[in-house]
This record gives sequence, structure tokens and C-alpha cells, in this order.
Amino acid sequence: VTDHDELRALLQRYSRAADERDLQALAGLFTADAHVDGARGDQAIDRWLDTMRAPRAFPTSMHDIGEPLIEVGSDGDTAALDAYAVVYQLADTGSGGADLTLGMRYLVDARRHDGHWRIERLTTRTIWMR
Amino acid sequence: VTDHDELRALLQRYSRAADERDLQALAGLFTADAHVDGARGDQAIDRWLDTMRAPRAFPTSMHDIGEPLIEVGSDGDTAALDAYAVVYQLADTGSGGADLTLGMRYLVDARRHDGHWRIERLTTRTIWMR
Amino acid sequence: VTDHDELRALLQRYSRAADERDLQALAGLFTADAHVDGARGDQAIDRWLDTMRAPRAFPTSMHDIGEPLIEVGSDGDTAALDAYAVVYQLADTGSGGADLTLGMRYLVDARRHDGHWRIERLTTRTIWMR
Repeated sequence: VTDHDELRALLQRYSRAADERDLQALAGLFTADAHVDGARGDQAIDRWLDTMRAPRAFPTSMHDIGEPLIEVGSDGDTAALDAYAVVYQLADTGSGGADLTLGMRYLVDARRHDGHWRIERLTTRTIWMR
Repeated sequence: VTDHDELRALLQRYSRAADERDLQALAGLFTADAHVDGARGDQAIDRWLDTMRAPRAFPTSMHDIGEPLIEVGSDGDTAALDAYAVVYQLADTGSGGADLTLGMRYLVDARRHDGHWRIERLTTRTIWMR
Repeated sequence: VTDHDELRALLQRYSRAADERDLQALAGLFTADAHVDGARGDQAIDRWLDTMRAPRAFPTSMHDIGEPLIEVGSDGDTAALDAYAVVYQLADTGSGGADLTLGMRYLVDARRHDGHWRIERLTTRTIWMR
């Protein structure tokens, strides 16, 4: 499996872990000192995972992360990924709440650690919201 | 061409054959003993293709299948694919009918047969519908 | 990096250059004699870039181009790409204008030029519009 394909799989594992609320799988995708810079500002990974454990406003989600633009660093052990994503946040049927759909850009700094690519920094930017 | 790229192409050929109503191309993507487990329950491939030949409620479709999470089996001749997809089912303009959009997950068991990857089992799950 | 991955990156660079209104980056993705056949009919690349320089009806866009079906020619220096895309054209907040979303198919003839893949012909077809 090529580095490019492992890096794509890293993003797809992220989306499935997020959608399945699998916090353990999610934690395993990041380095221990990773940071996430998203809707809640810049957070260390442990703090970000805590916020992911809190009850969600939307019980179901689908993170449709597209093909990333990939640049592997000259050292071969770091990489930058830049992917568009459409995130569907789905309200509980019968709750009367409206769904939320976001057009996003995911920027990832990845690092090879013990032979596996991990996310060292994830920056998410919202481009549009419906 | 790598196995990963051939497996991605298998999904993309599926979406184009489905959208172009090209039943012959569609049949060629499956093994002879394949099964499809979708909206109509579990069907053998021949029976499923029959239902695809029936007139459609929506004359135009666009199956936007995303990057799959790919696991090639240790034997090298089987693979599991897991892809999100957004399927746009478009009503005839002027029919007064509304379009239907589905958020889906495509799970594929693929097998290498005569040097080509084929779908042995396709399971589709609808996550959301609009 | 494989040809398949360079060709995917070509499409992703296209979408980012288009969304960032980076005309210089956009021009660099095409051969000097390229043609674009889209909403304005068939145009030589210089003329098409001129139209891209004009003020836009929608100030923000997101070109979400999916995984392409890729066929590299037997000479190894030409390739055909076929990708679905959803293009979000976003009206200025407060303008009262509505957003436009298009379901599209991008067909690309690519050619390797000085060691880099470039777009020689881009044909875009609108499948649906909202």
C-alpha cells in the first residue's frame, strides 16, 4: 500500500470513527500531542476528545470527505492533506429539528509514527452552512 | 495500476453504468454468483438486474460515490470496500415530481476473477433521505 | 507518486485554483493549446481564462470533485479522466441572492508535458441544478 493510499485511508477512518461515535478508534488516529483547530478553537487532542464524548445536538452524521490533495514532505515521514468535505448533521426524526449541512475544508498535518500515519494537526474551516 | 486503483475504478464504473442505465456494463462488474443487499432486500445478481431493467421512477440519476476505505485480504484476491455516497435521483422536469437525494454507505466484497476485480456482494445502507 | 495519483492531484489543484480565484495557478494546469468546453461553449484556454477574470455572480465557490475514473493511454503520456462533481456557488450573505448547486460531470483529456500532467481538454456537463 502506498503512502498516498494510507493517507487517504487515514481520512476515511476519521470520518467513520466520527460518524460511529467510536472515540477509541478516533483517538488512535492522532499523535499523542496532536491539536485540532475547529469550531471550538485550537484544542489539544485530549481536550477535543472530551468534547466529542459530550451529548451531541445531532444524533447521526455523515462525514463525506473527498479526495485529498496530498503533499508528502521531503523527509518522507510528514505529509500535508487538503480535502473538501460535506458534513451532514442529521436531527432526530420526530424531534422537529432541522438537519444541518456544512461545506468544509479539512487541512491535516500527518506524521509517520511507528510505521503508521497519524494526524498531528487537524484544521477545519467551514465554507458554507445550510 | 495498483489493486487499490482497480478497486476504486470498480466503484466508479458501477456508478456510471447505473446512471447510464447500461445493464450490460453493470452485469460485467459482478461475479456470476453475486448478491446485492439493498432497498429490495437480498437479491441474487440476475434478479437484481431484472429489477434494474424495470421503468424507473426517476429518469436521471447521479451516483456520487466517494473515496472508499479499502482492505485487501491476506490472500490478495479478496477485498472489502466501504464508501460513502450521495445519490441524486432526479424527477423529470415538468413532471411536478420532487427530486430525491440519499446519503448512503456502500459496502462491497470484491473478488479477483480472471485477473479482474468483480463485486461479489454489494450491501447498501441508506443513512439519510431528502 | 503514481500517474493515477498525479492525475487526481491535477483535478484537486483545479478545484482549489478555481475556488481561490488563482488565475495563475489555474493557467498552469493547462497546456498552452488547451480548450475548455463548458457553460460558455468551446473556448481556447486564453479566452476561457479571460472569462474567469470577469467579476463573478457568486463570490464564493466550492468545487467538490470526486474520484475520477482514469484511463491512461497505451503511450503512457495521455490519459482520460471522468469525474462527478458537485459545485456549490454561494451568494454573498446579505445580498438576498440564492445559492446555486450544480451536479456536474468533468471529462478531462490530460497530456504529460515536461514531466507534468496538464489538462489538454476539459469538458463539463451539467447533470442537475438547484
